[in-house]
Amino acid sequence: MALELFSHRPPDEVGLDDVAEAAGASRPLVYRYFAGGKQQLYEAALRSAAEELTDRFTVPPAGTPTQQLSAVLERYFSFVAEHDAGYSALLRGGSVVETARTSAIVDDVRRAALRRTLRHLGVRQAGPRLTLLVRSWIAVVEGASLSWLDEGRTLPVDELREWLVDQFVAMAAATALHDPQTAEVLAALLALEGPDSPRPARLRAVLGAAEG
Amino acid sequence: MALELFSHRPPDEVGLDDVAEAAGASRPLVYRYFAGGKQQLYEAALRSAAEELTDRFTVPPAGTPTQQLSAVLERYFSFVAEHDAGYSALLRGGSVVETARTSAIVDDVRRAALRRTLRHLGVRQAGPRLTLLVRSWIAVVEGASLSWLDEGRTLPVDELREWLVDQFVAMAAATALHDPQTAEVLAALLALEGPDSPRPARLRAVLGAAEG
Repeated sequence: MALELFSHRPPDEVGLDDVAEAAGASRPLVYRYFAGGKQQLYEAALRSAAEELTDRFTVPPAGTPTQQLSAVLERYFSFVAEHDAGYSALLRGGSVVETARTSAIVDDVRRAALRRTLRHLGVRQAGPRLTLLVRSWIAVVEGASLSWLDEGRTLPVDELREWLVDQFVAMAAATALHDPQTAEVLAALLALEGPDSPRPARLRAVLGAAEG
Repeated sequence: MALELFSHRPPDEVGLDDVAEAAGASRPLVYRYFAGGKQQLYEAALRSAAEELTDRFTVPPAGTPTQQLSAVLERYFSFVAEHDAGYSALLRGGSVVETARTSAIVDDVRRAALRRTLRHLGVRQAGPRLTLLVRSWIAVVEGASLSWLDEGRTLPVDELREWLVDQFVAMAAATALHDPQTAEVLAALLALEGPDSPRPARLRAVLGAAEG
């Protein structure tokens, strides 16, 4: 319920009185329960949102690797859509309720995303270049979802999701130039895509066309 | 001088007393000058750092587009190296001195980076997809420089710089699949690279090899 409030309004605009009103509870009761004030309430809401988001990282068992990635992104974007103002305020920083503790919760979510993605790629021990690739792609996903919110959701979310999957393949290809581990992971991933996957062929066509 | 202090220590650990000591000034003088306290001092230091960083975005007149991009990244990474702790604390968030005002300063730097990159690409009016591409690449640059600091600068900075240029080309190629404006910009950029540029050929080779 606090999560609901913090989802659609910037945290700086939510007060304990709003919580009491939304819950239909008496103000003294709410103030007694959240003796740590708004900060405590915000952190509790954030922790619950972080858990909900992390749950969505589970990869569905069916489909090719890029279809699975696309399915996870679909769940991620539905979370972003449901928690727009809160998501935006949290990742932007500069809110009065932001502390080292709230930053740590966000970092935990990022670490979970990194772990799940590496596991999905079948990697047990990632070297620094593969880690950098996956972290960078996660940063691109965050940035893209913030841009999507900023621009009033005008870009179709399906296109954005496909763009992010293509970005992953392209970024992995560029990383593979420098890193044998990434080259191996990418080759294994594209082999699982099957011969009909259009992704690598599409990317190659663009690079060829760009060269003229 | 305040910039110096905030560069190498997290802002939460710097006090006005440190400033007085570093400046060889009396404490009352420093406290009178920065009546707004540490917050005011931090914002002044941040503004001066933001100006310094923005100045480094100027593209050198000589070289191919990817060589110019690489030169700008070299200056960016030397800034990151000079302001390690401050840079890291600022972009990570959760510092007690972080406010809506400090976030706005950081956003201004990002906007300047976006503007300069688009100008470098010869773009007057960027559509939403090209804007998203450049913003995303800037997020990758930020993330990569934070990872580089986190891991004790073990990845060679020259490799990281070349990786980031390759990422730009790869991300642009993947965006061009969906967006004619980006396709045009990428084609123009690669035409300026000249026939000897190894970048597109290298990327194509990886995509081909990955397909098996």
